[in-house]
Amino acid sequence: MAETFRIGLLGHGTVGSAFEVLLNERADAFVPITGMRPEITGILTRSRGNFEEVLENADLIVELIGGIDPARDYVLRAIRAGRHVVSANKQLLSQYGEELWACARQHGVQLRFEGAVAGVVPVIRVLQETLAATRVERIHGIVNGTTNYILSEMAQRGLTYEEALRHAQELGYAEADPTDDVTGRDAAAKMAILARLAFSTPVHLDQVVYEGIEHLTADDMEYAKELGLGLKLIGTAERVDGGISVRVHPAFLYRGHPLASVDGPFNAVTVESETITEVTLSGPGAGGPQTATAVLGDVVSAMIPPASTPETTESLPVVNDVESGFYLHMEVADRPGVLAQIAELLGMQGASIRSVVQKGLGENARLVMVLHPLLESRFYAAVRLIGQLDFIRAAPRAIRVIDEEFT
Amino acid sequence: MAETFRIGLLGHGTVGSAFEVLLNERADAFVPITGMRPEITGILTRSRGNFEEVLENADLIVELIGGIDPARDYVLRAIRAGRHVVSANKQLLSQYGEELWACARQHGVQLRFEGAVAGVVPVIRVLQETLAATRVERIHGIVNGTTNYILSEMAQRGLTYEEALRHAQELGYAEADPTDDVTGRDAAAKMAILARLAFSTPVHLDQVVYEGIEHLTADDMEYAKELGLGLKLIGTAERVDGGISVRVHPAFLYRGHPLASVDGPFNAVTVESETITEVTLSGPGAGGPQTATAVLGDVVSAMIPPASTPETTESLPVVNDVESGFYLHMEVADRPGVLAQIAELLGMQGASIRSVVQKGLGENARLVMVLHPLLESRFYAAVRLIGQLDFIRAAPRAIRVIDEEFT
Repeated sequence: MAETFRIGLLGHGTVGSAFEVLLNERADAFVPITGMRPEITGILTRSRGNFEEVLENADLIVELIGGIDPARDYVLRAIRAGRHVVSANKQLLSQYGEELWACARQHGVQLRFEGAVAGVVPVIRVLQETLAATRVERIHGIVNGTTNYILSEMAQRGLTYEEALRHAQELGYAEADPTDDVTGRDAAAKMAILARLAFSTPVHLDQVVYEGIEHLTADDMEYAKELGLGLKLIGTAERVDGGISVRVHPAFLYRGHPLASVDGPFNAVTVESETITEVTLSGPGAGGPQTATAVLGDVVSAMIPPASTPETTESLPVVNDVESGFYLHMEVADRPGVLAQIAELLGMQGASIRSVVQKGLGENARLVMVLHPLLESRFYAAVRLIGQLDFIRAAPRAIRVIDEEFT
Repeated sequence: MAETFRIGLLGHGTVGSAFEVLLNERADAFVPITGMRPEITGILTRSRGNFEEVLENADLIVELIGGIDPARDYVLRAIRAGRHVVSANKQLLSQYGEELWACARQHGVQLRFEGAVAGVVPVIRVLQETLAATRVERIHGIVNGTTNYILSEMAQRGLTYEEALRHAQELGYAEADPTDDVTGRDAAAKMAILARLAFSTPVHLDQVVYEGIEHLTADDMEYAKELGLGLKLIGTAERVDGGISVRVHPAFLYRGHPLASVDGPFNAVTVESETITEVTLSGPGAGGPQTATAVLGDVVSAMIPPASTPETTESLPVVNDVESGFYLHMEVADRPGVLAQIAELLGMQGASIRSVVQKGLGENARLVMVLHPLLESRFYAAVRLIGQLDFIRAAPRAIRVIDEEFT
């Protein structure tokens, strides 16, 4: 039996319950990696549990209460008791980060917080580790999924701000009281944390200038389109004249900008420096399962010895005949029945045609098809037969097609 | 005086010399973070240095020789001697990874290799740490910058494969002998490493099916455009029916796919799983300074205790008056001289107009401008004065514009 790695969970709201579900699903998978089985050994909510007991029975505390009180007190007490802490609390870290980080250094425990910024998009880890070697010049981020969803709806469907907000609330992307999101305050807290890590200088939420999206109109969107611009709520942290600037405001982006194509509830962060030019990270922003994945990633990191690649835990067969969409390019004699014969051979192998383009070239024609996914072996069987037809003028050419759908 | 963290460098080609330059530039910045000053205490190249001496004088070995022999032997000897190793050698790891990782586990040292895949794009770390908590379903990657550059040139400028390859060689994006890149073998080695980490199952380079881009024609590009598709060399690693498939081949992508807009020598990787939907990481692929940054990031990680947020090392002022481009939206009376007066007030503050759209609305007109970057204080000073002009019909509205240029 593997040893138990004991987790005390503070808070059991959307993220907390998603974390519990995910942990139970994945716990066995961590045994071969870490030598231990993580397990929730105590839960504290407003109505049940006792902090001292939860702490006593835990190797690591996961703080998902949010807000300052009592989260700050609990985190400090956990660290002083020598427990690692994983938190997704951006308000706490953007206001009391220095106190907490100093306390963690002093007590030699880990304080991890990937879930506090941009859900599962690993910007914290990348700034703290991968990019520790570089001098960051600037960060641009779409770090609030609610406002990005609202702006995408306004841009794509011509909705007013009020209509788009209502949609977001119906879909659960915005809370009943959306103030923190739509005023830019939520994004400001996240940018304070990113700026602190990127520039190694203290940055408090109060120092971040922010402006929200409540005053934007459908008319602004119209002109944006006309001028070739996209409108996003952008957080910026950058070096300026020996100081730094950290701010959040609506901004137009030219289409070439890596953040211009980030739509819906997604988050994305671009980090610029001289040696790396730019690195962009994107993915689903806050959301129960996504933030819970980031939190669980932090928990597993606290359990794994650094940079050891664990033994393989599977011996999966490597399969070579897989399904794929295909583009098929053929030069054929331009005469009746050609398309029908090709379509029949494809149909016999279960291939279904998604689109066709045919162009006349004097006596010959060029026929290009895109096929829906099918097993490669079946596709190539059809192509071999097609290649033998008497009206084929050159060997058919095939290239795979990857769909926009994630299946 | 900070203690010296001694680095033995094997190989001094493009990446090796970029690493030396970067390390010397950044060494002082690591002292407050790690308590030590990293320094190269030995270099081994084909023509100078002695491996035993380099090893003897090092706490960590950076292996940038490439290839299997003698890199494999050196890495094994370094690990057995208890030294951490950082390597960017995809050929070695995709063929002898299991042997090396087992050896590192056995001797309790770190073997890091972020630089082996996608340069500074942190896909190794993200798979090993952030996403350790999730069950990865699929990875799609553009992991070879040379071929992506060639395909971008073919698509955007209508060049043939041979012309685009020549361009890439002139710009240093392709080597004199481009075989490893254009046949897909380089990408196959990288996909083998990613698949190993994502699925925790042994994957050897020999098990990866790959196909290159040499046979693609400008004609394929034409049809792609017509069908709304983009053509890329895509690496895929995915679960299929209780096994996995790992392969590299040219593939068409629908425009909505996150990899469809990755152009030029860039790399990008998309990781899909049920709980996270998808995370995309992108940035400059292989290149001396980029790969060197990834390697140095690994070195610093080996020096830092895990997940400790170091004390701040700066006390930078937070500046609020910064330069920005602006969109300015005004409702004005439609009469002569309006644009001239507005332009004069803007000009007095040093604002320069980038584009203007004016629309008549009966007696009034709507005037929308985009301005080149200027200090916010100067811009708002102009806007205050403009707001007082007698022909202004409503308070002017301003929104920031972020340029596509990275300044």
